[in-house]
Amino acid sequence: MQAPATNTIALRLALDDLYARYAACLDEERFEEWPDFFTDPCVYKIIPRINVERKLPLATWLCESRGYLRDRVQAIRKTSVYGPRYIRRFVSGIHIVGQRDEAIEVRANFAAYETQPDTFTRVFSVGQYRDLIAGTGSDMKFREKICVFDSELVPNSLIYPL
Amino acid sequence: MQAPATNTIALRLALDDLYARYAACLDEERFEEWPDFFTDPCVYKIIPRINVERKLPLATWLCESRGYLRDRVQAIRKTSVYGPRYIRRFVSGIHIVGQRDEAIEVRANFAAYETQPDTFTRVFSVGQYRDLIAGTGSDMKFREKICVFDSELVPNSLIYPL
Amino acid sequence: MQAPATNTIALRLALDDLYARYAACLDEERFEEWPDFFTDPCVYKIIPRINVERKLPLATWLCESRGYLRDRVQAIRKTSVYGPRYIRRFVSGIHIVGQRDEAIEVRANFAAYETQPDTFTRVFSVGQYRDLIAGTGSDMKFREKICVFDSELVPNSLIYPL
Repeated sequence: MQAPATNTIALRLALDDLYARYAACLDEERFEEWPDFFTDPCVYKIIPRINVERKLPLATWLCESRGYLRDRVQAIRKTSVYGPRYIRRFVSGIHIVGQRDEAIEVRANFAAYETQPDTFTRVFSVGQYRDLIAGTGSDMKFREKICVFDSELVPNSLIYPL
Repeated sequence: MQAPATNTIALRLALDDLYARYAACLDEERFEEWPDFFTDPCVYKIIPRINVERKLPLATWLCESRGYLRDRVQAIRKTSVYGPRYIRRFVSGIHIVGQRDEAIEVRANFAAYETQPDTFTRVFSVGQYRDLIAGTGSDMKFREKICVFDSELVPNSLIYPL
Repeated sequence: MQAPATNTIALRLALDDLYARYAACLDEERFEEWPDFFTDPCVYKIIPRINVERKLPLATWLCESRGYLRDRVQAIRKTSVYGPRYIRRFVSGIHIVGQRDEAIEVRANFAAYETQPDTFTRVFSVGQYRDLIAGTGSDMKFREKICVFDSELVPNSLIYPL
């Protein structure tokens, strides 16, 4: 086997680390740190797969700057009314599919599980991240993060980011 | 820590990449590309764990060549009758357990989720891949892929590969 | 990108391998090998997230030595009464969060699925591993393994380790 360049290996491991820290930030409900994973401006979108396949633009969430992401965090902390729940995120199959505008295009699968008090844990949403990542190493940030989810039904409200 | 040889690191990352591309190929329903992940001849088998443990040979699916795999794809595209659904696959715990016939033996866990229109996403099947992989780097191919699934019940028909 | 030292890459891949082998050991019900993943003494704890957040000490399981872990294995093999089931474990988002007492602090998410005869596979428990790992390479062992699970309800008894 031809050994890949060390910086390719470094890139792959930096990606693993980015997704692990991103999921842990949200799972541990450190929402105030969440906007720092993005460039400014950015695109953060949550959209059903059926809309992507039919090229329908309607998204469930759409944020186009860090300020907008911070606004979401304010909603979670101060203005939204919702029952307590834990969401836990799993990321699998991280792989690079191309390059665009001095950034790398990355795809990965996500699964989110919801636990409410006195209930069993259940599948909340599964789908694919379609991301554009700028920067290198520990300075990598999402320029675009498109969360394409498989089911139009989610078992409860979408309150926390994916 | 003793640093492993770079080509060992390369091997590990090539495996991660192989499984990520394999799952994405199926999740994105690019079934025509699926046979290219295998050598010819090959063994592709889906079998319940209870049969493996009791050494019973009966498998749910068994394909022994790329032609047979292509036949499966034809069935999906043209002859099978089934309702629409998305399947999404997660792979975890990829690890090398040995070498055999100039190929590496690899095991990993898989989880597949099914989403049908107007339903919640549900667990479709979980199990273990028991694979024999020939070749190196981006030329790695499955000489054997045995999908050992834990539940004899699946919530719907097995239409798409695992 | 600045290439990290090869031994950092080696450390990351050794961690991936440790968690993969740990999960496979338990999934394949090789329980007698399970205590060997720990130092002696050690801390192995399974505790609900709500107790961790409220700083309540009560744990569902607490083992403080390999002997105590072996005692658990004896219970599984000889004294507990329970119906047959398979548990399969997925680990995601392995990342290093610090160092303490010549060991590394690692966090990762786990998901466990349960399959009983003639039932569909279901989510058994999801949560976070909060681990302290001593040693290097293939000699790494858990000095502490805290399994913090999200739901106080589990769909059946907790018989097998997480």
